[in-house]
Amino acid sequence: MRMSRLLVRTLREAPADAEVASHQLLVRAGYIRRLASGVYTFLPLGLRVLHKVEQIIREELDAAGCQELLLPALHPIELWEESGRAKLFGTDSLPALVVDGRGGTFVLGPTHEEVVTVTVGAEVDSYRQLPVTVYQIQVKFRDEARPRFGLMRTRELMMADAYSFDVDKEAMQRSYQVVYDAYLRIFDRMGLQVTPVEAQSGAIGGDVNHEFMVPSVAGEDHFVSCPSCGYAANVEAAERQVAAAADERSADHPAPETVHTPDRAGIDDVVAHFDDPGITAGDLLKSLAVVDADGRPTLLLVAGDREARLPAGWRLFDDADFEAHPSLYKGYVGPTGAQDAGLRVVADLGVGRNGRWITGANRTDHHLVGVVAGLHFEVDEWGSFVEVVDGDLCPRCGGAVGLVRSVEAAHTFQLGTKYSDVMTGATAVSEDGVEAPYSMGCYGMGVSRLLAVIAEEHHDDKGLAWPVSVAPYRVHLLALGAARAPEVAGAADGLYERLVAGGVEVLYDDRDLSPGVKFKDAELLGLPLQVVVGAKSLARGVVEWRDRATGEERELALDEVTGALTSP
Amino acid sequence: MRMSRLLVRTLREAPADAEVASHQLLVRAGYIRRLASGVYTFLPLGLRVLHKVEQIIREELDAAGCQELLLPALHPIELWEESGRAKLFGTDSLPALVVDGRGGTFVLGPTHEEVVTVTVGAEVDSYRQLPVTVYQIQVKFRDEARPRFGLMRTRELMMADAYSFDVDKEAMQRSYQVVYDAYLRIFDRMGLQVTPVEAQSGAIGGDVNHEFMVPSVAGEDHFVSCPSCGYAANVEAAERQVAAAADERSADHPAPETVHTPDRAGIDDVVAHFDDPGITAGDLLKSLAVVDADGRPTLLLVAGDREARLPAGWRLFDDADFEAHPSLYKGYVGPTGAQDAGLRVVADLGVGRNGRWITGANRTDHHLVGVVAGLHFEVDEWGSFVEVVDGDLCPRCGGAVGLVRSVEAAHTFQLGTKYSDVMTGATAVSEDGVEAPYSMGCYGMGVSRLLAVIAEEHHDDKGLAWPVSVAPYRVHLLALGAARAPEVAGAADGLYERLVAGGVEVLYDDRDLSPGVKFKDAELLGLPLQVVVGAKSLARGVVEWRDRATGEERELALDEVTGALTSP
Repeated sequence: MRMSRLLVRTLREAPADAEVASHQLLVRAGYIRRLASGVYTFLPLGLRVLHKVEQIIREELDAAGCQELLLPALHPIELWEESGRAKLFGTDSLPALVVDGRGGTFVLGPTHEEVVTVTVGAEVDSYRQLPVTVYQIQVKFRDEARPRFGLMRTRELMMADAYSFDVDKEAMQRSYQVVYDAYLRIFDRMGLQVTPVEAQSGAIGGDVNHEFMVPSVAGEDHFVSCPSCGYAANVEAAERQVAAAADERSADHPAPETVHTPDRAGIDDVVAHFDDPGITAGDLLKSLAVVDADGRPTLLLVAGDREARLPAGWRLFDDADFEAHPSLYKGYVGPTGAQDAGLRVVADLGVGRNGRWITGANRTDHHLVGVVAGLHFEVDEWGSFVEVVDGDLCPRCGGAVGLVRSVEAAHTFQLGTKYSDVMTGATAVSEDGVEAPYSMGCYGMGVSRLLAVIAEEHHDDKGLAWPVSVAPYRVHLLALGAARAPEVAGAADGLYERLVAGGVEVLYDDRDLSPGVKFKDAELLGLPLQVVVGAKSLARGVVEWRDRATGEERELALDEVTGALTSP
Repeated sequence: MRMSRLLVRTLREAPADAEVASHQLLVRAGYIRRLASGVYTFLPLGLRVLHKVEQIIREELDAAGCQELLLPALHPIELWEESGRAKLFGTDSLPALVVDGRGGTFVLGPTHEEVVTVTVGAEVDSYRQLPVTVYQIQVKFRDEARPRFGLMRTRELMMADAYSFDVDKEAMQRSYQVVYDAYLRIFDRMGLQVTPVEAQSGAIGGDVNHEFMVPSVAGEDHFVSCPSCGYAANVEAAERQVAAAADERSADHPAPETVHTPDRAGIDDVVAHFDDPGITAGDLLKSLAVVDADGRPTLLLVAGDREARLPAGWRLFDDADFEAHPSLYKGYVGPTGAQDAGLRVVADLGVGRNGRWITGANRTDHHLVGVVAGLHFEVDEWGSFVEVVDGDLCPRCGGAVGLVRSVEAAHTFQLGTKYSDVMTGATAVSEDGVEAPYSMGCYGMGVSRLLAVIAEEHHDDKGLAWPVSVAPYRVHLLALGAARAPEVAGAADGLYERLVAGGVEVLYDDRDLSPGVKFKDAELLGLPLQVVVGAKSLARGVVEWRDRATGEERELALDEVTGALTSP
């Protein structure tokens, strides 16, 4: 492609809303343009990268035995009512756009579990036709509340989503592993170092699921990583070990002391009240009045220096809940007497570690000091209820874990029968003649988002530096001062023609611009190899040959360039 | 691909709503499935055809110097308000879906003139960057009132739309011709015989435009075709010659005779009233009270045996208009005294051909007989105001034209400055330093619709018969009775592996089904070449080799098949 004809315009300045490098560089280099918040155009260079990424996905999924199809973007809302997910619309967990038309009300597919379940359901009746894994590469729509970071979080996105169908759970797990492995190969080919982490499933559902995370300073997520054993999990799903606690119940314990703490409702306020270097937030017990997933009023206890992590479906007390439990005073809630007040008590494992706590006294402006679990209050259930932090102990090996800032490149789910249980026709007859719902998996990667993820990992302060596998062109051919040096123009034109004829993807900067501008644009655009034809080197019969990523330079005889790029 | 693993299920019966062959066969052969009215899934075989069609379009447009990009499907409605087209939403001429989201109100792009105009407008400032022609292959949405004929008219469709940008009209016409020629090559490669016809532009706008029509019994349109000179035009745009008329004004003419015609308001009623074999509908003058595009009350006169064709922007009188013109009696309107009543008189050229007319008398239950144009009424303007029919005279050569039933495969428009005049930033500075709006062209073909168009042209009563260029696989390899004949399974397996290794696209029917079922499915699926491995022929070292389209059969030595398919 001759750059003089290419629809590309490089910008000196990044747009004001571009906070991360990938966003800044993809816009500055003319790969993408913003049409509206979270809505982007792919200009020719950007679309070439998108197509390369899509092609890698196709090749690896096809090689793994998956079949490509194309499902509609317009989903009759009745299908979402059938699955029960229509009630999530408008919430952050499933921000779908819904449109009314002459044919009824349609959901603009944010994900395709419903549609694929009924589609495959209509085609497959017997175990003989299974396993089947289908995938599609298709535009998706999300009514995103806060689009951010360019292509990272958008309202319109290109996605590769796959769905597996099996006769039972064991077969599903095999199909899941096949796609999981293909995903790892896909990311490897794109030059991405991903870590699959155990995660929570959210609005998609199912049991086991993994997020494929790429460590990145532009990440909005963190995952917990154990350098010793390789354990990795999303912060929402991560577990930890807790050192065994001294059992304070065996000691000859005084009754808790009641302390007057006027206007000291927060953890930090209470610590300040004591004004004692020996008393820190970790000595206080945070008692959260919550309603659990089964609707039971519950006190959730975590150490005062930790962030509580509510399980899915749990919520904090609202005003009505507090009115129904008059013994609880906001800011001064504590576990003593909780069961008598009709509350379950659920505690984080860390609460066992410290035997003496400062807690709310269930009385306005008062706290208790020296409260011991099992002595002054009872715990009905223990579990992991805090966010894991740097230095916590790995649940597998006991080593110290760390938090890694990262972006999500893909997410895979073992759905089981969540959708096939409720959708029409989603059954197959097994080898034993029994008709049963499919066991399904679903798998998604944001194709357009991957451009941003790759750009985050492959750039420097001068611009992008694409891996060859996804670069829009392999070679950036620069002709320097060609307008005043016809021999340069002739040599560069000839080289360009030979490279194109040899099947090399080459972008030819034939513009009438200064060498400085051309070099700067070449660094910004980030094609893997720069070949520079200038008058001086040409006089010696050579060109410059420069690796964009490493900066390595060498000279090569002009007549050796085509051979070097076309030999296998 | 092994058919035992392919997600395909052939059906004996076509769905009840499938009226045309392409719809019936694409569903029966398992290429597409209906999710909702006008909303279809492409199963793996259908998607392969779609991708082949897309690839041909890409290759030809790239070769013609066009650049592919990808514009968003979500358009801020403000852009459509800027162009003035938002007011057409909800009408049949621009049935767009509009959706409200957190980011505002978005149009689901039915076409992309607005978006591409501002997008290219932001990148291109100077004539040096022009001409630019961009295209995209993208899903489009239309709030179609009556989806029909499977993929022919849908609510969600894949489209290839291109847009050209030039400094002036002459340059635009050159760019138009480049895409026009590329379109002809694209259709030729797909095995389609298209006729470009002059057409009206409708909601897109602009002056010159062409529809690319494929003659088809499944067509919803007709075009006018002259077998003598090749003139072709859409029925809405077609012109005709009219033989010169005798000038009845020179004769010694009696005054028109008033005839009592009670309850005879329609053409056929009046003809019946006279009950005279010498008086036919062609002797009556149809006088239509209309409002022209400039809002002027007008009488439009056409011969009683022709269908009037109202120009764009004209409409029939409504009740309020009749009330404002009390001299006009519905059913008895005539041109005498029209100008005195405040009406312009516009007549089809055919009205000059017959000097003596029967017209309404502008008096209830009465007609006039023997009315002559120029004598008893005046015509302010002559033009073409009837639909051309079989046997009319070609406007170019005077030969008799015919009507050809057909489907539209593409539509191209010389837009000029229709959009660039009103959209922000859509200007370039010319070589003379003058800043002027771009001259634009736009070009669209329905990619998913092309599957139906090709299937209409390439099928027989047994099934589809794809051209090699778009077939999902080139070869259908059938193993007959392999379950009971291990030597057949071994030979077919080996041949399959060799063909795949040689890069041949082959669908291998390895299913445990009867030869009858396999043959029937092969005819239905319509891959260009069938290679049949059976026990009897295999004993002689040969396979059957059958051309699906022609039915030609021959035998070929088993060990020659791979060579025959892989040699260039």
